[in-house]
Amino acid sequence: MYHSTICSFMFSANVFQPRMLVLRLSNTLKNQNVRIGHCTKVPRNVNLEKLQHGYLFPEIERHELMHLRMYPNANVIDLGIGDTTQPLPTVVTSSMVDFVRGLSTATGYRGYGPEQGEKALRKAIVVAFYKDLGIKPSEVFVSDGAQCDISRLQLLMGPNLKTAVQDPSFPAYIDSSVIIGQAGKFVDETGKYKNIEYMTCGPQSDFFPDLPSIPRTQLIFFNSPNNPTGHAATRKQLEQLVDFARVNGSIIVFDSAYSAYITDDSPKSIYEIPGAKEVAIEVSSFSKFAGFTGVRLGWTVVPEELLYSNGFPVVHDYNRIMCTCFNGASNIVQAGGLACLSPEGLKAVRSIVDYYMENARILVDALTSLGLTVYGGKNAPYVWVHFPGSKSWNVFAEILEKTHIITVPGSGFGPGGEEYIRISAFGLRDSIIEASQRLKYLLYHQEN
Amino acid sequence: MYHSTICSFMFSANVFQPRMLVLRLSNTLKNQNVRIGHCTKVPRNVNLEKLQHGYLFPEIERHELMHLRMYPNANVIDLGIGDTTQPLPTVVTSSMVDFVRGLSTATGYRGYGPEQGEKALRKAIVVAFYKDLGIKPSEVFVSDGAQCDISRLQLLMGPNLKTAVQDPSFPAYIDSSVIIGQAGKFVDETGKYKNIEYMTCGPQSDFFPDLPSIPRTQLIFFNSPNNPTGHAATRKQLEQLVDFARVNGSIIVFDSAYSAYITDDSPKSIYEIPGAKEVAIEVSSFSKFAGFTGVRLGWTVVPEELLYSNGFPVVHDYNRIMCTCFNGASNIVQAGGLACLSPEGLKAVRSIVDYYMENARILVDALTSLGLTVYGGKNAPYVWVHFPGSKSWNVFAEILEKTHIITVPGSGFGPGGEEYIRISAFGLRDSIIEASQRLKYLLYHQEN
Repeated sequence: MYHSTICSFMFSANVFQPRMLVLRLSNTLKNQNVRIGHCTKVPRNVNLEKLQHGYLFPEIERHELMHLRMYPNANVIDLGIGDTTQPLPTVVTSSMVDFVRGLSTATGYRGYGPEQGEKALRKAIVVAFYKDLGIKPSEVFVSDGAQCDISRLQLLMGPNLKTAVQDPSFPAYIDSSVIIGQAGKFVDETGKYKNIEYMTCGPQSDFFPDLPSIPRTQLIFFNSPNNPTGHAATRKQLEQLVDFARVNGSIIVFDSAYSAYITDDSPKSIYEIPGAKEVAIEVSSFSKFAGFTGVRLGWTVVPEELLYSNGFPVVHDYNRIMCTCFNGASNIVQAGGLACLSPEGLKAVRSIVDYYMENARILVDALTSLGLTVYGGKNAPYVWVHFPGSKSWNVFAEILEKTHIITVPGSGFGPGGEEYIRISAFGLRDSIIEASQRLKYLLYHQEN
Repeated sequence: MYHSTICSFMFSANVFQPRMLVLRLSNTLKNQNVRIGHCTKVPRNVNLEKLQHGYLFPEIERHELMHLRMYPNANVIDLGIGDTTQPLPTVVTSSMVDFVRGLSTATGYRGYGPEQGEKALRKAIVVAFYKDLGIKPSEVFVSDGAQCDISRLQLLMGPNLKTAVQDPSFPAYIDSSVIIGQAGKFVDETGKYKNIEYMTCGPQSDFFPDLPSIPRTQLIFFNSPNNPTGHAATRKQLEQLVDFARVNGSIIVFDSAYSAYITDDSPKSIYEIPGAKEVAIEVSSFSKFAGFTGVRLGWTVVPEELLYSNGFPVVHDYNRIMCTCFNGASNIVQAGGLACLSPEGLKAVRSIVDYYMENARILVDALTSLGLTVYGGKNAPYVWVHFPGSKSWNVFAEILEKTHIITVPGSGFGPGGEEYIRISAFGLRDSIIEASQRLKYLLYHQEN
């Protein structure tokens, strides 16, 4: 972390004339340890000051790069960031190719599209994911991805709300809450932000919060299947959650980015629960469902029935945010998304999901055979492994050092992730098998 | 605008039990005047409450739709929203086609890319736009467009700053400032937000603010060539602006989205001005430069030399925002952007810019021939027409009613745009010629 010297003293001393300064910058500004800078009089955003470290996944990448510098010939297997590896079905790419080719013709060229997404795609999303659930295309907002939508939802909600998150959870919920100014002070002793409610979701409670003990908050982020634990909330659990939100007058932001990975009868959308439309926003994505991690496409559903305390429909304000702070997802990518939702497209992306789930099975089998306690991998492409008594960053470092496998330390997802490691099942089959063998070798020899 | 009744009374009466309510919704929720809703206890974001009306361009579209409903057979010419109409050069689409095809192959598939953009593209942007200006690829952040970046810059800066904008100006600066919470109360009498500094930029001062009369603000949004006036700030003007920012310790957010349209020697980047790197962020876009309005690609430059008052580099926090609130521009689109910046691509997009500028010349000639005072159209694809003594929304309505041409009322860009109309030069040549003739006919007959 960077700490300035001269300039901050100037600021404390209330000397406001801008000056040319020689500053010693952190090593993140590579190869330039001495630099001429200029202090503006603009104070750093206090919300950004509160962030404790870099965003989790770029941090993991940084560790990978450092490792490669140390072991340039290592065959590193990356099961860290949940990044898709399987080629897109040709039905999807053909459709994008046609659209792109059209852009070079007078009849096929398209300029600005609707900020909310193309009508045909909004309709196809309803048919594919919300059939018989009463969601209307006008309630679906197409975007460049769920992570971006989470920040836009925070812009929508503003700084004056209290938020609850599952612990552990996908770090964008807490980080975006900090950035918008909801989170309050970070407390070193607990590893938690003061104004965020951490709902422990561990195996002792079937990865579901003990709701009666959770204070009322205005927002509740809930992710199912959960990243990182891999747990898909049961129908009964989600009924309890919706009931809890209704009684408390809270809004649930339900993240269903991994719903395509559900193999049992757990609900794939919060709107399968009666009454959810009046308390829940749903965020979802083509990233993991269709391998669009780099192509970028997602959506958010804001039902008309969802109202602020003064009766104003949330959907109107979300529409305003999408028109002002966003300008529509790429029309090329939307054409690809539409192709994913055709019967042929759905079949093709389904087989890729199955491929990753077979990877998950291989990883779960390998780890279970060693006597480890393993969660996830059944309804999600993540395997959540318990190392009782160990610090997760230490486990992460040891696995990396001894097997050249990148994982993610559980505590990166919140204090509730301590003692755990998340292993991603995204990857080529050969790498997954190789990784399983390396882990078996390492852990077997540690035990014996 | 929607005002609820029952629910807000409940809220004022402090009755907190959520209830099922029958609510009369505004006509924006079409075809459903009576609806069952549920009031959560989540208050509406006070910042969103302060927005005065819908975002300008969707509002203009709404007028167009209403007009088409009234005149279903009218041959409406849309010179309102600045939307590109010319097909993309094949050198650009071929490159995207190759990339998309690759996504269906094992070797060509790509998942998540760097949140900051592909290295090759960041480098190509530097070569194409910042040659000899000392900008480094690591200071360039590729995005899905300038409008989206403006909101991310507001997230970066937070609510506790005072902002100055040109008046008139592109509405996203003010609206995003309202959404993040910088703007304060809207004052009906002035048509201005209390905490925003409106820097009048009219013809009396060569479309440049009278800087000695402008109070110090932390942020200054400055757009050159300006949307809507079409004025490109001269080198001398920009030197004054940079000097003003340095003395005041302000940060300039310089929007150069239309720089490709500059035909004289006005600077195309703020970094052409010595010392600008220490006080300015630059936002730019492929939208108007390369016809990417629907394809979506832009970038923002945050120089390492730009420091907060405590000496912390702004670029570190912007990187954190991009990693947390954004997930990279579509890799397909980035491939297209890279092709635009090849020698062949640059030549091809240049000829499209020339086409729109010829449109602008035709419009300027037609309007000038009627004795109207016309600005812009020389360094920007917008023509800014003065109708002294008239309300711009009335002029907009009359032109639409009598010629079926969509324009944009100047007051939509701020109180300084009153009495003006913005006419976009984006369009097919035939439409531009037809529009010129209709305007000539209408305005000639009004005069005589």
